[in-house]
Amino acid sequence: MSQERTEISSLGEFGLIDHLTKNIELKNASSIVGVGDDAAVIDHFGKQTVITTDLLLEGVHFDLAYTPLKHLGYKSVVVNLSDIYAMNAMPTQITLSIGISNRFGLEALDEFYEGVYAACEKYDVDLIGGDTASSQKGFVISITAIGEVAPDKYVKRSTAQNGDLLCCSGDLGAAYLGLIFLEREKKIFLENPQVKPDLEGEKYVIGRLLKPEARKDIIDFFGDAEVTPTSMMDVSDGLSSEILHICKQSELGCVLYEEKLPVAEETRKAAFKFEIDPTACALSGGEDYELLFTVAQKDYDKLVLNEQISVIGHMVEQEKGHKIITKGGNTFDITAQGWNAFR
Amino acid sequence: MSQERTEISSLGEFGLIDHLTKNIELKNASSIVGVGDDAAVIDHFGKQTVITTDLLLEGVHFDLAYTPLKHLGYKSVVVNLSDIYAMNAMPTQITLSIGISNRFGLEALDEFYEGVYAACEKYDVDLIGGDTASSQKGFVISITAIGEVAPDKYVKRSTAQNGDLLCCSGDLGAAYLGLIFLEREKKIFLENPQVKPDLEGEKYVIGRLLKPEARKDIIDFFGDAEVTPTSMMDVSDGLSSEILHICKQSELGCVLYEEKLPVAEETRKAAFKFEIDPTACALSGGEDYELLFTVAQKDYDKLVLNEQISVIGHMVEQEKGHKIITKGGNTFDITAQGWNAFR
Repeated sequence: MSQERTEISSLGEFGLIDHLTKNIELKNASSIVGVGDDAAVIDHFGKQTVITTDLLLEGVHFDLAYTPLKHLGYKSVVVNLSDIYAMNAMPTQITLSIGISNRFGLEALDEFYEGVYAACEKYDVDLIGGDTASSQKGFVISITAIGEVAPDKYVKRSTAQNGDLLCCSGDLGAAYLGLIFLEREKKIFLENPQVKPDLEGEKYVIGRLLKPEARKDIIDFFGDAEVTPTSMMDVSDGLSSEILHICKQSELGCVLYEEKLPVAEETRKAAFKFEIDPTACALSGGEDYELLFTVAQKDYDKLVLNEQISVIGHMVEQEKGHKIITKGGNTFDITAQGWNAFR
Repeated sequence: MSQERTEISSLGEFGLIDHLTKNIELKNASSIVGVGDDAAVIDHFGKQTVITTDLLLEGVHFDLAYTPLKHLGYKSVVVNLSDIYAMNAMPTQITLSIGISNRFGLEALDEFYEGVYAACEKYDVDLIGGDTASSQKGFVISITAIGEVAPDKYVKRSTAQNGDLLCCSGDLGAAYLGLIFLEREKKIFLENPQVKPDLEGEKYVIGRLLKPEARKDIIDFFGDAEVTPTSMMDVSDGLSSEILHICKQSELGCVLYEEKLPVAEETRKAAFKFEIDPTACALSGGEDYELLFTVAQKDYDKLVLNEQISVIGHMVEQEKGHKIITKGGNTFDITAQGWNAFR
């Protein structure tokens, strides 16, 4: 963080908004009116609009002790875009509201916005509105993402079919190990501030936690390969929890194969170091922001062309329950170990 | 508030969302997919989409010492709809995110949502998505409102013309007096909890603060009378601050007449009681959620048919500045006394 410090109060609310938004150039043709009025205006040219929103609170969703503000800005945008992609849609705009206490100077806020704009740039979305408020305590972030999809091409969670293949993108469990690692380093640091953390060895899992990406490439692939998933959602709470959502909403059961779960080599190594089962990380870790989806069996030949997609199981009748078959050949019920916000 | 208390943790996050959203019936034809997926889907049938968002923080934007949760829910929705109307658009959907600490039970949250749903019902908007999070401290509310408008019928702040009439809806200054009154009663109560507040005499100004309405009727009137304002915004920070926004963004000056400012009889009485100038309340009070707009002089004959609209001044060249002419015939510069979030 920069050593300079400009008090935000020196700008006033409108000066602050001007400062934070002065470099915005609207890139999407559908962004007609952006920041600076009561509301933004979007033209969707006959497409359908997709909307999602997330609230991120300091101390609950992120810890500024080990989260650089630029990464936080980037991730805040990405987790919302991930929800738009999970509808098989393309994000086009976001609105961003922040609540900040006076412990943040303008330089800190600029770092946060740098990350926000970097994500907007990478994913071709326009920041078109928002709200700034002073908070008494803690950093509050609320983002709403807007996307578009050709009529009736959106993909819900509730439309998986019996016999469909259950698939996911990328690899799982790394973000959770990144969190475990950073929490441990924080504890060591608080006990002994002289010890410098050695993050080098865990770059991959830490990167997956602090700077996740949304799987635009998978949605592009679906378009190019002319595959429409029968159901889809993103993996934010943890794979097992998300699978149970799709099963419940589609009124189906599933069979999942442990040996098919995609886990990166770096994740396995980190899990080994922390003496945690990598499968448990993949199933329950959360924050991976991969896509979980089902496709008809007839699309299998197309899917195998994409190395970033793993077939991890298949859908069965609801009566057959939700099962995982382990590498050792045992069968267990899948249980949601996903994050419960209120415990 | 009800005496019963159900811990929110007993439901879990998804149980809570089910509980809060189980009675939603989507009413707008454009609401295709609502709560329960990664994102909601909206079809705009060739109309343009209008989006606005607000972040409301306990202790900054509202005080639960004198704000009933039902009113808070209602107002949270209304203030966002007001921004949509201020674009000459009709709101159709909202998303609602809340952060709550464990000091709130389920019954309290139900009261809040009762207000949210009452506003949705009154203004014909659908709640289509959101997020719930636990907060460490304080109640956090983030609402995004979505509306629609026929292509190019939206009205911005920057398009007022020289010579246009400056108008506002309803009456001004009441909400500010409601706030002064409730803050005084709170202070009395904290000093002596035995004293029962007598709110009866100040019902109007308190009502304007705690349960504001958005001016849908004015937008309906514009449609019926075939009047399109040349610029418009809603009065949330205070009339003088909003007038300066329109002037700045339209690169114009203005002349405002004190005698034309609409102030309710109840507001004058309350101002007298508190020894505050009612004109100061109207100019700087804020939270009135009336509409401030400019219209071409040719539309004057149509406007006078609506008793809810006051012509309060007119637009002049930028060089002539921003002036208010008092009842005594003196001329002063208009200064923004609007709320500054960071002081």
